[in-house]
Amino acid sequence: MKIHNFSAGPGILPAEVLKQSAEACINFDNLNLSLLEISHRSKNYEKVMLEARNTVKELFEVGDEYEVIYLGGGASTQFAMVPYNLLTENGHAAYVNTGVWASKAIKEAKIIGNTKVIASSEDKKFTYVPKGYEIPTDADYLHLTSNNTIYGTQIKQFPKTNIPLVCDMSSDIFSRKVNAKDFSLIYAGAQKNMGPAGATMVMVRKDALGKTGRKMLSMLDYQVHIKGDSMYNTPPVFPIYVTLLTLQWLKKNGGIAWIEKLNQQKADLLYNEIDCNSLFYGTVVKEDRSNMNVCFLTNKPELEPEFDKIWKDANISGIRGHRDVGGYRASLYNALPLESVQVLVDTMKEFEKKFA
Amino acid sequence: MKIHNFSAGPGILPAEVLKQSAEACINFDNLNLSLLEISHRSKNYEKVMLEARNTVKELFEVGDEYEVIYLGGGASTQFAMVPYNLLTENGHAAYVNTGVWASKAIKEAKIIGNTKVIASSEDKKFTYVPKGYEIPTDADYLHLTSNNTIYGTQIKQFPKTNIPLVCDMSSDIFSRKVNAKDFSLIYAGAQKNMGPAGATMVMVRKDALGKTGRKMLSMLDYQVHIKGDSMYNTPPVFPIYVTLLTLQWLKKNGGIAWIEKLNQQKADLLYNEIDCNSLFYGTVVKEDRSNMNVCFLTNKPELEPEFDKIWKDANISGIRGHRDVGGYRASLYNALPLESVQVLVDTMKEFEKKFA
Repeated sequence: MKIHNFSAGPGILPAEVLKQSAEACINFDNLNLSLLEISHRSKNYEKVMLEARNTVKELFEVGDEYEVIYLGGGASTQFAMVPYNLLTENGHAAYVNTGVWASKAIKEAKIIGNTKVIASSEDKKFTYVPKGYEIPTDADYLHLTSNNTIYGTQIKQFPKTNIPLVCDMSSDIFSRKVNAKDFSLIYAGAQKNMGPAGATMVMVRKDALGKTGRKMLSMLDYQVHIKGDSMYNTPPVFPIYVTLLTLQWLKKNGGIAWIEKLNQQKADLLYNEIDCNSLFYGTVVKEDRSNMNVCFLTNKPELEPEFDKIWKDANISGIRGHRDVGGYRASLYNALPLESVQVLVDTMKEFEKKFA
Repeated sequence: MKIHNFSAGPGILPAEVLKQSAEACINFDNLNLSLLEISHRSKNYEKVMLEARNTVKELFEVGDEYEVIYLGGGASTQFAMVPYNLLTENGHAAYVNTGVWASKAIKEAKIIGNTKVIASSEDKKFTYVPKGYEIPTDADYLHLTSNNTIYGTQIKQFPKTNIPLVCDMSSDIFSRKVNAKDFSLIYAGAQKNMGPAGATMVMVRKDALGKTGRKMLSMLDYQVHIKGDSMYNTPPVFPIYVTLLTLQWLKKNGGIAWIEKLNQQKADLLYNEIDCNSLFYGTVVKEDRSNMNVCFLTNKPELEPEFDKIWKDANISGIRGHRDVGGYRASLYNALPLESVQVLVDTMKEFEKKFA
């Protein structure tokens, strides 16, 4: 039975990646040992780690001025590590608040140092992306959240600035072309477009580090992890391997150019139905709609149980909206095929036909 | 081909756990979805997390005065989190230095607050466990490392004290009976006796927390994770599941009483050969020998390539000693069968017969 997996994260992964992951649990790299029970210092795994790091640089088209590391602890740990590594004692950091995750990043930064929220869409429940705000030229960095998983907004055009740009790309990394060289630091929890839960990728310009003068805890110090080739301590071995498989799948199928086009088709198909269907409407302003997380409501909430029955019968999974928004949220991550979106659209049409 | 896996960690896991893990990569809990692509907030996974937490309490035979959480970032992150959560501004912490990992824990604690090393075996290259040292009665806690993976020593009897006891049990957790109620906090990276790399278990007495007055970063605050039922943020989903399977395997086969007896048999078999065989000798004092990591050298180092050939031909893997000690290290973690130790002993006998 084929399930159409619209989960917001951990989210859908390519079927061939799942198959390879299962195989590695039994016999990894023809060692007759499971990947779950071998040393991360084995040559076989060191190759995985190196390739997982290099493939990120390749997909982002950056050179040796950047380093890539994989860490445990989720993107939430990065909310603390970013200011810990970049925010100087007398300096300040600038944040744009576009939702729950940005708010959490701001909260942690405030514990570490002087943190200013220079723009926010909280006034309208994060249903848009702030634009045209003034960026301080003397801040240590500007922190953005490229895609808001919960409210379904996405930064379509990143602001231009001379200060270091830091971006949490957890929910739309490698879903579209970005000019990675415009950023000093990009981080992402793997569990949406990159792989399974348990690993977080950090790509950072080397020259952005070492400036705070702070005496640092080893595990929170990017330079310690870089020096240790992302193996200062035992890394999350299996999640990083599955991440590598997912990135290889992306590369093999045509890379960012291919996936950006496919993701646009998927988003267009679904948003078009939301706009045409008399029983549904989108929750955010059109120009800021996320191509990854499509949030929508029905204007006949009393009929929700009827719609729920229809999509469940179609083997659709994971489209219940986040509790803060309600209604529905369809996540269209890289591994979700266009066919699954068509199935969802068909259920929406069926719902309209029956109940409009 | 059956490999005898003596890896020091990540280490051997039960064959049935590996099989179940592989199955979960394809179809978890009959959802027709992979465990790698479902929400950690799904009922199916919430059940896993709850059981993984409860099984630790059950195996340690403790009640509701303790909480169990699983975190990313490895035991190395706990080197910082322990003092961050327990060491008061005007207080001090006491540490016993029994090796590389204890030294790293001490280094992090010193960054956070007043830290005293009250005993150390560094004078003899960590080849013994200090005993009979005086424990300050006014320290915030005493930190111990129950087993030294690199040098192959193990604390056989924990010191009695009235101050809170904290213990890094990464490399011998659930290998033997301990009085868990004597400890305020026990932590362990999963990747030796508990499961695969990527998850760290922390069990803590609730009344030990909330005393530092420190303004805390969320991800480093045990109370935040406890309040979130170990799901404050997305946890390392798959590593925790494999950990649960491993704990269930232990319980099903007879629990701590069963494994302690088996581990003693395995250790006795190997140490006996080391002591009888004219070509080998152990590296640490006998009374402190670890039942988990058996370190030994040959007194004819020029013949190492000959011995290496013999054990490699016997499908033995992972017994090369740590670079700090050299020679050999056989790790006898819970999932290693007695038969594998017998195979190793046989190769040692063969080596002696040929070259003594």
